[in-house]
Amino acid sequence: MLSFVNDYSAGAHPKIMERLMATNLEKTVGYGEDQYCEAAKEKIRLACECQDAQIYFLQGGTQTNQVAIDTMLDPTEGVICAATGHINVHEAGAIEFTGHKVLALPTDNGILKASQVREFCKGFYADESHDHEVFPGLVYITHATELGGVYQKHELEELRAVCDEYNMSLYLDGARLACGLMCGASDVTLSDIARLTDAFYIGGTKCGALYGEALVFTKNNMPKRFVTRVKQHGAMSAKGRLLGIQFDTLFTDGLYFEIGRHAMEMAGKVKKLFADKGYKFFIESPTNQIYIIVDKQKKEELSEKVVFSFWENIDDDHTAIRFVTDWATTERDIEELEKLL
Amino acid sequence: MLSFVNDYSAGAHPKIMERLMATNLEKTVGYGEDQYCEAAKEKIRLACECQDAQIYFLQGGTQTNQVAIDTMLDPTEGVICAATGHINVHEAGAIEFTGHKVLALPTDNGILKASQVREFCKGFYADESHDHEVFPGLVYITHATELGGVYQKHELEELRAVCDEYNMSLYLDGARLACGLMCGASDVTLSDIARLTDAFYIGGTKCGALYGEALVFTKNNMPKRFVTRVKQHGAMSAKGRLLGIQFDTLFTDGLYFEIGRHAMEMAGKVKKLFADKGYKFFIESPTNQIYIIVDKQKKEELSEKVVFSFWENIDDDHTAIRFVTDWATTERDIEELEKLL
Amino acid sequence: MLSFVNDYSAGAHPKIMERLMATNLEKTVGYGEDQYCEAAKEKIRLACECQDAQIYFLQGGTQTNQVAIDTMLDPTEGVICAATGHINVHEAGAIEFTGHKVLALPTDNGILKASQVREFCKGFYADESHDHEVFPGLVYITHATELGGVYQKHELEELRAVCDEYNMSLYLDGARLACGLMCGASDVTLSDIARLTDAFYIGGTKCGALYGEALVFTKNNMPKRFVTRVKQHGAMSAKGRLLGIQFDTLFTDGLYFEIGRHAMEMAGKVKKLFADKGYKFFIESPTNQIYIIVDKQKKEELSEKVVFSFWENIDDDHTAIRFVTDWATTERDIEELEKLL
Amino acid sequence: MLSFVNDYSAGAHPKIMERLMATNLEKTVGYGEDQYCEAAKEKIRLACECQDAQIYFLQGGTQTNQVAIDTMLDPTEGVICAATGHINVHEAGAIEFTGHKVLALPTDNGILKASQVREFCKGFYADESHDHEVFPGLVYITHATELGGVYQKHELEELRAVCDEYNMSLYLDGARLACGLMCGASDVTLSDIARLTDAFYIGGTKCGALYGEALVFTKNNMPKRFVTRVKQHGAMSAKGRLLGIQFDTLFTDGLYFEIGRHAMEMAGKVKKLFADKGYKFFIESPTNQIYIIVDKQKKEELSEKVVFSFWENIDDDHTAIRFVTDWATTERDIEELEKLL
Repeated sequence: MLSFVNDYSAGAHPKIMERLMATNLEKTVGYGEDQYCEAAKEKIRLACECQDAQIYFLQGGTQTNQVAIDTMLDPTEGVICAATGHINVHEAGAIEFTGHKVLALPTDNGILKASQVREFCKGFYADESHDHEVFPGLVYITHATELGGVYQKHELEELRAVCDEYNMSLYLDGARLACGLMCGASDVTLSDIARLTDAFYIGGTKCGALYGEALVFTKNNMPKRFVTRVKQHGAMSAKGRLLGIQFDTLFTDGLYFEIGRHAMEMAGKVKKLFADKGYKFFIESPTNQIYIIVDKQKKEELSEKVVFSFWENIDDDHTAIRFVTDWATTERDIEELEKLL
Repeated sequence: MLSFVNDYSAGAHPKIMERLMATNLEKTVGYGEDQYCEAAKEKIRLACECQDAQIYFLQGGTQTNQVAIDTMLDPTEGVICAATGHINVHEAGAIEFTGHKVLALPTDNGILKASQVREFCKGFYADESHDHEVFPGLVYITHATELGGVYQKHELEELRAVCDEYNMSLYLDGARLACGLMCGASDVTLSDIARLTDAFYIGGTKCGALYGEALVFTKNNMPKRFVTRVKQHGAMSAKGRLLGIQFDTLFTDGLYFEIGRHAMEMAGKVKKLFADKGYKFFIESPTNQIYIIVDKQKKEELSEKVVFSFWENIDDDHTAIRFVTDWATTERDIEELEKLL
Repeated sequence: MLSFVNDYSAGAHPKIMERLMATNLEKTVGYGEDQYCEAAKEKIRLACECQDAQIYFLQGGTQTNQVAIDTMLDPTEGVICAATGHINVHEAGAIEFTGHKVLALPTDNGILKASQVREFCKGFYADESHDHEVFPGLVYITHATELGGVYQKHELEELRAVCDEYNMSLYLDGARLACGLMCGASDVTLSDIARLTDAFYIGGTKCGALYGEALVFTKNNMPKRFVTRVKQHGAMSAKGRLLGIQFDTLFTDGLYFEIGRHAMEMAGKVKKLFADKGYKFFIESPTNQIYIIVDKQKKEELSEKVVFSFWENIDDDHTAIRFVTDWATTERDIEELEKLL
Repeated sequence: MLSFVNDYSAGAHPKIMERLMATNLEKTVGYGEDQYCEAAKEKIRLACECQDAQIYFLQGGTQTNQVAIDTMLDPTEGVICAATGHINVHEAGAIEFTGHKVLALPTDNGILKASQVREFCKGFYADESHDHEVFPGLVYITHATELGGVYQKHELEELRAVCDEYNMSLYLDGARLACGLMCGASDVTLSDIARLTDAFYIGGTKCGALYGEALVFTKNNMPKRFVTRVKQHGAMSAKGRLLGIQFDTLFTDGLYFEIGRHAMEMAGKVKKLFADKGYKFFIESPTNQIYIIVDKQKKEELSEKVVFSFWENIDDDHTAIRFVTDWATTERDIEELEKLL
C-alpha cells in the first residue's frame, strides 16, 4: 500500500545496501575502531568544516539523546527544552531514567527562543535557594523540530550566546537534520551547527541508513571515558564498522544532502497536490512533514488507500493528519497519491 | 589478513544479506510490530517448542542483558552470577548502572553450580538482618560460557530447582548459544533451555547476524509494560523489522544451527592443527573458543600472519592465546593456518 | 533577633525534649522496631481512624517524598503535580534522581484540580503511541500548599475519583499538615486524608519535632520490602526510637493539633497587625504562611529588626515577603513585631 | 534488661542532651549554615590538624557512605573494598542504587592490604579491553572494621601510595572511629587519617550522638555543588544546627575521645570477665566489639538475662556471639554481667 507514514519505514538507501554487500566478508576490528568508521568520521569532519570534531556512532535517536545528554551533564544538572521536544514527550522518560530533570518551556512550533532560555536562567540564579534546585546545564533543540519548525542562523547564534552566558552546553538533535538543512526555509548550514553547538547528531535512521546516528562533539569535548559510558548504557555496537560503512556512504558524493533534497522535492509535490485540491494545512511546515486538515469522511477514504499518521483532532468534524516523504518516496508514489485525491 | 580473533568480525551470513536486499524497499510499520518480526517469533517458538514464549528483538548483548535483568528484578534484588560472567566483568557496570548489585560467585570455567547458589541463598536467608542486604532475585548463566564451558541438562535442572526454592528467575545469556548447542559436549537442547529458564537470549551478533539478539521470555512472563521500559533504556529499534528479517532467516531451514555446526567443525580442525603440532591447551574448551599455550616467540611469529586474541600471561615465557571460529571461517582459512603452523 | 523566617528554625517543642530526656538512657532495639515506634504508630492509627495504616518514620521531607514516590511508582511511571509543587521545584531533582519524571501542571496557588488531572490522563491514553511516553502513576498534592493553599474535602474526593479512574495512587505531602488541618479554611480532617489518599506524610520537622516525618500507607499497601528500600535510599535511622518518641509525644493529648492551632492563632495576629497598618497581601493565604507586599524602604527597615523571607519582586518599588509562625512563636514576638510596624 | 547488643541502643551522651536543651528555643538559619555548625567544623579542623578540611554533617552511616562515594566517583568508576565491608554487605545495595559497582576483595578481618589493591589495579590496566570494565576510582576502608580490625599507620600510608599511583581516592568509614583511635592497638591518629585520606567520616551515631556523622573532605576537595547533591539524595537536614550542636559538644574538651576511651575501658573489663571464666574468643578484636565462643546451652542461659548479638554458628554445639560496649556502658553493667557469668 502507498505509504507516507514516516521517514523510517523502508530499509536503507540502495547505495548503502550495495556498500554493505561489497564489504560483507571482510573481517575488521570491532567496536567502531575500524577503518570505515575512521573514514566516515573524516568525511563528516570535512562536511562540518570542523577538524576538532570527535564523532561516535550510535544506533538510534533516543539512545543518542540519552547518552549525549547524560554524559554532558553534571549530576546536579537538567536539560532545558521545548515542551514538545522529543526527549520530553516521546522517549518514555529516558532522560529521567539517567537521573536528570527535563526543564520544559512552552513554544509555538518547537522552536526554543534564546530570550525565554535567558529568562529562565536569570530567574534560576536570582533565586537565593537555587542550590536546592536543578541547575540548567544544557539546552536541547531539534532541527527540524517535531512540528516541522526550523531554526535560523541568528537564532542559533543567540542560543549560543545565552549558553555561554550561563555556562550551558548547546545540543542539537538532528534526527531530521537533512531535511532541516535542505528545506530552503533556513539559512543554517552544517558547519554553522558544528560551530554553534557543543554537540549534535546527524540522523541516519530517518535519512536512508538501516539504523545509526553520528554523534558529533564539536569542540574536542567528548566526555571523559566516553567509550566506557556508551558501554554502560548498553549502546555499544560490536560490529561497529556497519555504522562506519553507512555514514561513509552517506557522506560520499553528498548523498546525505541529496537524500534531504529529494525528500524535500517530494514534499513540495505532496503539498502542492493537497493545496491544489483546496486542503488547508494545520501547521505551515517547511520540511518533509506535512500536516493537513481533513474532514472525517475524507480521512476514512484516504486511509483505505494510503498509510499516514493521525496527528490531532481539531473539532468534531476535522482532523489533522501527517504525511512524510523520504529518500524512498518516488514520483510514482506522488502520481498514485494524485489519483487518490 | 587471516583472522580468528572473534565471532563478530565479518558482516552477516550471505542468506541474511540476501533477505535484507530482497525486502529493502518494502515499507512496514516500525518498532518491531511488522510481519517479519511476527514470523521470526513464530519460528523461534517452534524451534524452542515453547508456544508461550514472548519474544523481543534487541540490538546487542550488553543491551539485552541490561534490559532483561533490570526488568526482571525488583529494585531490592541483585543478580547471582559466576565471577567471570560477562555482566560482572565486561559490561562496564551496565547492571549497576540500573541500580542492581551483581552477586558474583567463584567458579572453575564459568559454570555456576546449583549447590553454590543454594549455599549462598541459604546463608542469606539465615542472616537475621537480611532485609539490610541485597536480595538474590535472579541467576545469570551463559551457555557457552566466556571460558568455553557448557552446561549439562541435569545442571540446568538443578539450577531451576534452586531458583524455584528461593523464588528467583533463571536467565541464560546465549551470546554463543549456537556453538553451545552444537558443540557435542552438552546434552542441552534449545527446548530444554526454554523449558528450564524464565528467560534467555538467542545471540545473533556472534552467529551470523549484522546485529541483534532475540530475548525470549519463556513462561508468558514478559515484564509489565516491557515496550516502555525498552524505550526508556534507549534500546528500541525504529526499523525493527530488520531484526525480524534477520531472525526469520536464521530460523528458516535451521540456518542458526547450521552456523553453529559449521563453526564447531572449523573449531575442530583448528584444534587438531594445534594438537598435531604438539601445542597444549590452556583450557579444554569444547566450543568455538580455543585457548592455546604458545611461547613468546611463536606468539610474535603468528601475530604477523594471523589475528587472534591475547588471553593471559602464564609465565615469563608462555602465553595463552585465543582462536575463535564462526560462520565466516572457511576451509581455506584452515589451510592457510596449517601453512603458518 | 525576632524571627518569622520559617517553621523550622527553633529546636523541638518542650514536651518532646522532655520526653527525649526522660528516655535517654534506656536501651532499645534499633531501626524503629522498638516500643516507642509501636506506640506512636498506634496513636497515629487512632488519630487517622485508620486501623489498616502502615507507618514508617523518616527523617525529612525531601527524603520522605523521594522514598514514598519511588517505592509507589512502577519504573515506567511518573508523578503528576502542581508546577509549584515542592518535588518539582525545591528538591534538587530528587525524584528524577530515582528515575521518575515529574509531570507538572499549572495551577493558581498550588491546588491541583481533578479536572486538569483527568484531562491530562485522557490525553495520554488517547495518544496511540503512549507506550513511548511516561505513564502517569501517582498524583502528588501538598496540604497546605507551598503557596498557602488548602484543599476542600470535595476536591480530595474528586482527586480520589480520577486516581481510581486511571489507576493512579494519591499521595499527600503533609510537611505543613497541622496548619492545613487547623487553619479553619478547609473542611478536611486527618481521617479524610487517610480515607482518600493511598499514602501521606505527617510533617514533624515543621511542627515541633527536632526532625522526622511519619509516612502513612493507608490501605495496607506498604510497598514490597519497604525496609530494604528505605535502607537502599540511605534513609534508615539506627536509633529509630527517637522518631517514635517524638511522634508518640506529638500524638499524645492532641499536641500535634494544638501546635497547628497555636501557629494559626499567631498567624492571625500577624495578619491583623499588617492589615491594620494598611499593608496588602500578595497571596490571600489562610495558613501560617503570610505573604505581605512592602515597599523597598520598608523591607530594608524591617530586615534590620526581624528575620523573614524574600518571596518575589513585584515591581521596581514593591516586594512580596513571607512571614511564618509556628509552635515557637510567642505573644511577646507579636508584641515586638507590633512595635516594629 | 542488661544490654551489650550494640553501640547505638541508648539515646545521646548527657552532655549532648544538655546542650540541645540549652539551645532549644534559639532560632537559627537552616540547612547547616548556622553558627553551631561553623563552630563544630572549626573544632573538627583543629582536632584533625587539617585547616583545609571541608565538613558536612549527615544523618547516618549508610547515607554518608552513599553520598560520599557517589559524589567522589566518576560515573565510570566503582569502589574497591573488603568483601566484608559495610557497603558491600549491609547497606542493601545503596552504592549500586547510585549506579556504582562495588569491587570486593577478600580479606582476613576486614583489613584491606595495599598489595592486593595494587594487584587488582595492575591487572585492570593491563587488560587491553579495560575500557569495557568498571574503573577502580576509590578505595573504601573502615576503622575499626566490621570485624574489629584496626589499621596501622604504615598500612594507611601504603594504601595512600597505591591510590596516588592509580589515581584513586581513599575514603575511610569512621562509624566506629572513636574506638579505632582509642583502642590502643593502632598507632593511627585522627590527624594521620586527615592527612592520608581524601575523605572520611567521624561517626556520631555509634559514639554518643542522637544521630549524625561528620563527613570530612580533607584536601579542599568537596565535590562540585555538594549541597545540591546532598539535597538530591534526600540527605539534607532542615534543622541542620542540631548536627552542629552535637558535634560541637563531641569536640569540646575531647568528649569524642573520652567516649572512645570509656567504651574501650569497659570492653577490656568485659573481655577479662570472659577470659577469666575460660571462654575463648572467635576473633581477637582489639576494639569495643567482643566476639565470644559459647556453647548452645550457655547462649540460651545468657540470653535470658542480657541482650547481645548472634554472630555466627561455629559447629553443632558452639556459636560465636558479640558483645559491644559504648559510652552508656556502666561499671554496674559490668558487675551485673560478672554475676551472670
